[in-house]
Amino acid sequence: MTNTAQQNELANAIRSLSMDAVEKANSGHPGLPMGCADIATVLFTKVMKFDPANPHWADRDRFILSAGHGSMLLYSSLYLLGYEDMTIDQVKNFRQIGSKTAGHPEYGHATGIETTTGPLGAGLGNSVGFAVAEAKLAAEFGADLVDHYTYVLAGDGCLMEGISQEAISLAGHLKLNKLIVIWDNNNITIDGKVSNADSTDQIARFKAVGWNTIEIDGHDQDAIEKALNDAKKSTDKPTLIAAKTTIGFGAPKKSGTEKVHGAPLGAEELAGAKQALGIDYPAFEIPAHILESWRAAGTRSQNVRGEWEARLAKSDKRDEFTRRMSGKLPADFAKAMAEYKQKLAEDKPKVASRKASQMALEVINKAVPETLAGSADLTHSNLTNTPETVPFQADNRLGRYMMYGIREHEMGAAMNGVALHGGLIPYGGTFMVFTDYARPAIRLAALMEVRSIFVMTHDSIGLGEDGPTHQPVEHLTALRAIPNLLVFRPADAMETAECWELAMEAKHPSILALSRQNLPAVRTDYSAENRSAKGAYTLVGPADADAVIFATGSEVAIAVEAHKELTEKGISARVVSVPSMELFAKQSDAYKAEIIGSAKARVAVEAGIEMSWNKLLGDKGRFVGMHSFGASGPIDALYAHFGITPKAVVEAVTTQL
Amino acid sequence: MTNTAQQNELANAIRSLSMDAVEKANSGHPGLPMGCADIATVLFTKVMKFDPANPHWADRDRFILSAGHGSMLLYSSLYLLGYEDMTIDQVKNFRQIGSKTAGHPEYGHATGIETTTGPLGAGLGNSVGFAVAEAKLAAEFGADLVDHYTYVLAGDGCLMEGISQEAISLAGHLKLNKLIVIWDNNNITIDGKVSNADSTDQIARFKAVGWNTIEIDGHDQDAIEKALNDAKKSTDKPTLIAAKTTIGFGAPKKSGTEKVHGAPLGAEELAGAKQALGIDYPAFEIPAHILESWRAAGTRSQNVRGEWEARLAKSDKRDEFTRRMSGKLPADFAKAMAEYKQKLAEDKPKVASRKASQMALEVINKAVPETLAGSADLTHSNLTNTPETVPFQADNRLGRYMMYGIREHEMGAAMNGVALHGGLIPYGGTFMVFTDYARPAIRLAALMEVRSIFVMTHDSIGLGEDGPTHQPVEHLTALRAIPNLLVFRPADAMETAECWELAMEAKHPSILALSRQNLPAVRTDYSAENRSAKGAYTLVGPADADAVIFATGSEVAIAVEAHKELTEKGISARVVSVPSMELFAKQSDAYKAEIIGSAKARVAVEAGIEMSWNKLLGDKGRFVGMHSFGASGPIDALYAHFGITPKAVVEAVTTQL
Repeated sequence: MTNTAQQNELANAIRSLSMDAVEKANSGHPGLPMGCADIATVLFTKVMKFDPANPHWADRDRFILSAGHGSMLLYSSLYLLGYEDMTIDQVKNFRQIGSKTAGHPEYGHATGIETTTGPLGAGLGNSVGFAVAEAKLAAEFGADLVDHYTYVLAGDGCLMEGISQEAISLAGHLKLNKLIVIWDNNNITIDGKVSNADSTDQIARFKAVGWNTIEIDGHDQDAIEKALNDAKKSTDKPTLIAAKTTIGFGAPKKSGTEKVHGAPLGAEELAGAKQALGIDYPAFEIPAHILESWRAAGTRSQNVRGEWEARLAKSDKRDEFTRRMSGKLPADFAKAMAEYKQKLAEDKPKVASRKASQMALEVINKAVPETLAGSADLTHSNLTNTPETVPFQADNRLGRYMMYGIREHEMGAAMNGVALHGGLIPYGGTFMVFTDYARPAIRLAALMEVRSIFVMTHDSIGLGEDGPTHQPVEHLTALRAIPNLLVFRPADAMETAECWELAMEAKHPSILALSRQNLPAVRTDYSAENRSAKGAYTLVGPADADAVIFATGSEVAIAVEAHKELTEKGISARVVSVPSMELFAKQSDAYKAEIIGSAKARVAVEAGIEMSWNKLLGDKGRFVGMHSFGASGPIDALYAHFGITPKAVVEAVTTQL
Repeated sequence: MTNTAQQNELANAIRSLSMDAVEKANSGHPGLPMGCADIATVLFTKVMKFDPANPHWADRDRFILSAGHGSMLLYSSLYLLGYEDMTIDQVKNFRQIGSKTAGHPEYGHATGIETTTGPLGAGLGNSVGFAVAEAKLAAEFGADLVDHYTYVLAGDGCLMEGISQEAISLAGHLKLNKLIVIWDNNNITIDGKVSNADSTDQIARFKAVGWNTIEIDGHDQDAIEKALNDAKKSTDKPTLIAAKTTIGFGAPKKSGTEKVHGAPLGAEELAGAKQALGIDYPAFEIPAHILESWRAAGTRSQNVRGEWEARLAKSDKRDEFTRRMSGKLPADFAKAMAEYKQKLAEDKPKVASRKASQMALEVINKAVPETLAGSADLTHSNLTNTPETVPFQADNRLGRYMMYGIREHEMGAAMNGVALHGGLIPYGGTFMVFTDYARPAIRLAALMEVRSIFVMTHDSIGLGEDGPTHQPVEHLTALRAIPNLLVFRPADAMETAECWELAMEAKHPSILALSRQNLPAVRTDYSAENRSAKGAYTLVGPADADAVIFATGSEVAIAVEAHKELTEKGISARVVSVPSMELFAKQSDAYKAEIIGSAKARVAVEAGIEMSWNKLLGDKGRFVGMHSFGASGPIDALYAHFGITPKAVVEAVTTQL
């Protein structure tokens, strides 16, 4: 320990608040805040660039607490630095309903929380997206406007999760030199010593994927400062700072053990820790001179920010930069889409909805320069590319296409990071069945309500011969189950255009579930109104029909064919296309009643399982779809084999009449 | 190329069949079988121990094609080796409905397919479980009965997926020296060169996690053989053999490019490839002398197997070994559980269902020596440990507890590998919200129908302060959506015991969704019948009640309390506990009608989303549960905040009457 008394005082303020908040909540994780207080002190009072009075400053450095259970480290620091919304009362209300100080940092609860973390590895995964966004925007707008670092604090848990490898190998490949990860190397996990479950040489591991590495004593503030400043000088590699720490630093009996990880210290141990650390002030009462030092540190980048504001004010890129960071779409986006939809009404293309997606993207990527495209190594299957999408690489920061590699989880996490950074709208593709790999990231996008757009092609047994491992069956239901997530399954090129419009305009993340197989145009007239916006609408048939058939995506054409056959039999039927159940659920009761109607026969057809349809089907409705995993075979044979046919729909109708 | 003409002939038989099958199916992946034919030839004709005439021989070496898209490599080899069920007609029916030769290898379709692969990294993930099972069974039963290797063929896709890091770091930590991974190092992924998306030094990466590494020319059969034999000599490390190959080896224009990865060669390129390789025989017609060489190789371990059978016959461990490998539970399992349930009826413990699970496991682990316990670093939260579960480690192969580390996905994949190997019944725990991390493995367990038991604790907002990142909300629905998966949510200690019994006896994988919070005993009488086996049953109340209340897990007590309040109001109600919707769905229509009944009011209460309840609720039923993500706060405050209370249930009932 070579720290000065003042350095210790600053760090102990974090420790003190963290111990007290956990103790008061009788719940939480004191170990990390106590162990990483020196790191946070140096980062926040010496190294990072930010302004608590302007927490959304676009060119601030970002800090990501990937080890989100250590949330009190962040909350304590934000309070000490003077973030207005992080009051001492918030700290005292740690882990209570309605407080900004949730158990894990929740994006949107308080300024200074750059992303929601807690699920391990998530923050590290996001950080690559933050660093990509910084590098790309710097290339677009110049270092005058964009020149900041992304700092991550990650624990052993983060580094053991698979996503960490996806993240660091992508970051190393892309030479994201302004990404700096500090590893809280405390040798402890919940079940005891790291060595119970892992023997990784982390330094060698990071070097193997192209990282700069530095090893330090994580309690030596001068060493921490030097390491961070050295890391900032890296020109072609991201940096890992392996900081040896003691979990629960200061706790006389529990420090260095798993006992201090995730439970309050208890009164006796807490008193002992304070004594050992020299903390002689009451709970939650940081002495004025310590608070003043922290607050002064909080203001130290104000001049830098002022200079930046001046540069922005006189920049010829000001309006565009400001628009981009605000998340607003270009003024002419709607016009471009309207023209495209008029053309579709004329052309009536019979294409796969993944192809229709690419056609829509050709319009979008031209009209909206901030889209950041990508695919997890399935570009020519997902059709996520357009003429604009040259790859983003270490030697081309202006690229608009992320070659994510076979890393679906990291793709999702990086997209969230890009969206959180701002200035770019990420979309990325894989096969829909692999939403399972990316599911933790999709959930976090939904929880944070960020505009990540997941382009999920090959959305049913319609993908054919690849078989059940590649055929989504339960995925539409499983995705519809996630709150705040918009799941779109468009029926043809027109609906695909509409759904893309909605996804681009949404405040939530979106899934676009798209077919591999060609689909006929079922929407052949131009409509100025985005009909998909209500989630479900009558495509064909009279309001008072005897039967109503709900369908989505590739099965809408089957419903339309069934409608034709029913009409020939003299049975009046109505087909309702349901591009988004979530948007339909938000409509008025009157509209819902109109769409559901009171037909005697009610049928839903979708090449997935029934569960998400039961609400619409009610007691008597019948479902035509999947009741098991799929199989390997040609598409037509599969649809026949599993009985997803116009004939089956007709039968499901007629048995009810 | 130093291969002899005969070596080439053998390998070209694989290439020829693979090209022809893909061409005939007009779908599939010729690149890997052509690139890895030399590797497969050496493995199957020189190195591996197996007997096509006895494909289930317990002590066979296992081969796992982690790069499952190269399925024709396996199918060709199985045919050539003489596996009876892999006929030439099966090869000709590649990728057709009902054939054994699905697009990706499907476990159970044909002998010799040890696991279902295709989702990248899955097979590599499984392999660690296979190697663990081998090591543990060898320690239990001796090398006389158990002494075999696990071979994996993995591609760049497998190595880029995050699960690969979880798998190799766990394998290295556990020093699984009999695990040998061959990396098909062909520099190509679907989107082009690996270097587009990855710059990993794989050798350094594997060394960093404790692996032995060997680099070879993957087309030099002598080098391959030497490398494999060297790998087998490793005493304390798993081995990576980095085999430099050319994807689509032999294809004159497309070899070495992504064009040969996932599409038929086309007539011209196919003809050119056959000419270049010297294949002068018709499609699907392997010349007799080549087939004879392969078939002879297929029989070469018959003597070894005979000797093994002789050792087994005279072993005093024969009966136990045979029972264990058959998957049958010990004869006295049912008795032990009956005694335990009688005791529960007396004690009526008020415990969390995770604690009840541990109590059940104390009986199970005593009665069933083949359970292999574990947790992804949450042992004292999941309560997956019992006195028997000493850790399985490099220095204790007799251990019964897998310290999986913070690797949920690999835990699931390894559990599947253990179950597939046979002789052990794996169960493993994490927080239920992290089923999202393990979801691809859970899906594969369901697709394969293997007995992996996932112990998922902290199954709702009832976990409290950790907040929405840790609170499952959509997970019960999302898991129920997976075909073939049994999702259990027991209400008290008795139901937990019953559900554990069902999971142990199941042919499918199971999820046990368990509470963090204490639950009162709602089942206080002993029942010889396992009442949970029907999935749903009337817990309290008359058959002709005016209201029926469905509930699961921690909400059953809320339903019982509501029942009491309704009774006080003079309203007759019936409470139905639904420990497993899947088992209930399998009951007779008569039983279902009896349980659902015709009460005027119908309510379901569950601290998750509504979707999976709509089928039971029908048109008029009402749901009491979650309609959003959760929040951070104490449990009682959360249940009140989200309105999951007896009062809410009572109101939901009375508004319908």
